[in-house]
Amino acid sequence: MLPNLTPDLELAERLFAELRDATFDGTGITRDAYGEGERKAHAIVRQAAEAIGLDCRADPVGNLVMTLPGADRAAKRVLLGSHLDSVAEGGNYDGAAGVLAGLAAVAGMKRAGFVPARDVAVVAVRAEEAGSWFPISYPGSRGALGLLKPAELAVKRQDTGRTLAEHMRAEGFDPAFAERGGTTFSAEDTAAFLELHIEQGPVLEAEGIPVGIVTGIPGSRRLRAARVLGEYNHSGATPRKYRRDAAVALAELAHRVDDRWVELEAMGHTLVCTFCVMGTTAEAGFTKIAGEARFQLDVRSVNPHSVDALMETLYDCIPGIEARRGVTFELGAETGSKAAPMDADVQAGLVRAARSLGIAHRMMPSGAGHDAAAFAQAGIPAGMVFVRNQNGSHNPKEAMRMEDFAAACAVVTRWAQEMAQ
Amino acid sequence: MLPNLTPDLELAERLFAELRDATFDGTGITRDAYGEGERKAHAIVRQAAEAIGLDCRADPVGNLVMTLPGADRAAKRVLLGSHLDSVAEGGNYDGAAGVLAGLAAVAGMKRAGFVPARDVAVVAVRAEEAGSWFPISYPGSRGALGLLKPAELAVKRQDTGRTLAEHMRAEGFDPAFAERGGTTFSAEDTAAFLELHIEQGPVLEAEGIPVGIVTGIPGSRRLRAARVLGEYNHSGATPRKYRRDAAVALAELAHRVDDRWVELEAMGHTLVCTFCVMGTTAEAGFTKIAGEARFQLDVRSVNPHSVDALMETLYDCIPGIEARRGVTFELGAETGSKAAPMDADVQAGLVRAARSLGIAHRMMPSGAGHDAAAFAQAGIPAGMVFVRNQNGSHNPKEAMRMEDFAAACAVVTRWAQEMAQ
Repeated sequence: MLPNLTPDLELAERLFAELRDATFDGTGITRDAYGEGERKAHAIVRQAAEAIGLDCRADPVGNLVMTLPGADRAAKRVLLGSHLDSVAEGGNYDGAAGVLAGLAAVAGMKRAGFVPARDVAVVAVRAEEAGSWFPISYPGSRGALGLLKPAELAVKRQDTGRTLAEHMRAEGFDPAFAERGGTTFSAEDTAAFLELHIEQGPVLEAEGIPVGIVTGIPGSRRLRAARVLGEYNHSGATPRKYRRDAAVALAELAHRVDDRWVELEAMGHTLVCTFCVMGTTAEAGFTKIAGEARFQLDVRSVNPHSVDALMETLYDCIPGIEARRGVTFELGAETGSKAAPMDADVQAGLVRAARSLGIAHRMMPSGAGHDAAAFAQAGIPAGMVFVRNQNGSHNPKEAMRMEDFAAACAVVTRWAQEMAQ
Repeated sequence: MLPNLTPDLELAERLFAELRDATFDGTGITRDAYGEGERKAHAIVRQAAEAIGLDCRADPVGNLVMTLPGADRAAKRVLLGSHLDSVAEGGNYDGAAGVLAGLAAVAGMKRAGFVPARDVAVVAVRAEEAGSWFPISYPGSRGALGLLKPAELAVKRQDTGRTLAEHMRAEGFDPAFAERGGTTFSAEDTAAFLELHIEQGPVLEAEGIPVGIVTGIPGSRRLRAARVLGEYNHSGATPRKYRRDAAVALAELAHRVDDRWVELEAMGHTLVCTFCVMGTTAEAGFTKIAGEARFQLDVRSVNPHSVDALMETLYDCIPGIEARRGVTFELGAETGSKAAPMDADVQAGLVRAARSLGIAHRMMPSGAGHDAAAFAQAGIPAGMVFVRNQNGSHNPKEAMRMEDFAAACAVVTRWAQEMAQ
């Protein structure tokens, strides 16, 4: 029977407060990737990890690895963690919760005198918030998994205009390591990666369940800069047959695509489809027919066939709308990402842990992308635990009850203990 | 038989050039209502009218009346004209063409030694471009027809923030005249009003016809500041059933209303329906579900039942969309205007004139509003002649071929001559 290990929640609470104090920007939390905010957060976490007596090392691309040595140092490690950067004016929990959960678990082991059979390490990954800083996915974890393409080191941080490589160097790290495909973590040295994260969506809150066990991270197909071009004309003086109305053309497309989503859900597909930005531009105005409209589309599912089925409808609709309405769609480049199913054994282990602790939980897909997708892509068994939260994420109102965090930490600790037994 | 009167087109061409030179703003033409641009235009036109020997008077609200006296000064006058103001960065023809056509007609009469049986007067109306300056319809003509409501004198010019009354006073006029319902023109003293105007739409150009004879000015029902309120959420992490997506809610409404327009046209209705502005706000962004969307709607027809039939669909759709999508529509104040059919005798006279001159023409509704609507509302028989133009109106590229203007002027001159015989 397993000893009764509990996570060190006082430590986590203290670190949440320290992180908030150090990186509050007057409105929310800003921990810029490979910049001052993230640097401060890493320093706080490292100091705490050293105080516990963990072996702390930053890898060549800046990920901080904090290890509780196991009895067999040559055995594959168990890895816990998440990222410490945040969006600009974001919240204190997106990312940090997973790092502090890992530390709480390991500190709990230390406190109980538990010596794991293998290393249990906590990683604070760099630069996960791609939307805010570098316009690529997971440069920190992918840079440590041999998955970063050399060209990606040349992308620029959206606010500073300096490249990822320049930012890495400025923080004292070595982009050449990622360039030559060096690895900090691989399937040869890591038994599994588990990432705790706030849910970011409303499902757990709406259903009254504190913990989610993630089945997979969705893949996506995206249009970030799509346009509909028509012709500006007088709204009163232009009969229907002479119109080239970009606004209603886009409305028709969005409505048809959304109807198809309803249809696909009725057929059993699980996906999301969002016209994040949709509408006329600043040139539009009263008594004018819109000559241009713009949109951004984000379609995601753990099942790539579901995404493709929706996108097919989009592409099928367009020629008819163009012909009937005299407009032209310019969709721009399609971007996207591959789905990353979570490891079945990790999922099963998390279910066992939650059940043995009597913690209410549900299986659910992730909606957003996470570093766990990169670990899965590298062939490392990966899993995620979601914590119920309020007010979504990426905003100053991000909220998470400490009792929910405690429940999720207990699951993480139990799982890690079983893995490292 | 009528003598062979021809309009003085050289005069009109010279005045078009003078107006352009005096009011070119670097991008287009700006003749601000009750402001510097309109003042310059009135001065140019007045000087030319005085040079011809017309009796020139500005009425108490600033409309310039330029009269060729008839044999019977007590008989009801024939009135020709349009407005001289323009939108900001607009074109040289919208408005001015009607004033210069009137002057060309009267100058042609003078040149031929034709003495009309009754006064033939040309009016340069003030402040017609309501969308750009004062947010009310036709303050200049309505102020001269006893139709301006006292409260309307307190509306503010959108750029200066000063009231209509203040602007009138600053230009040396007397808003109290309009306040007490004074009239410059009435059914007792005016036999008919004829306004020549560029078409503003593409119909004459597309159909290869130089002249349109207007059957009526449409009425409208409008939403200028309508909103859809939902909730901002993460586009990946929020399943359909937890969404309150304002963007697709608006897309559905616009698409359904547009479909209804198609249906009404198939049933024989003639109307136009435009979502001039439609879409998410600046708060929208990638990976966010839109929590708000805004729109402006402009529905017009000469037949009020057609407008009502469309608006009914809008109001019928909304509760269902709100219920299914968890959003709320806030439509704001509905504004609108009444349709103004053009006088049947004036239409018939214009058709006679065009036929006798062998000028190709078609009957058509106006799309936009015009001062002629105010004259009709005051009980004065009113008509309009449209001139084929290119590139629409309200923009620096407004174009009108002088041969088309000449054809339309010939119709105006012939009609006025017949009226004043």
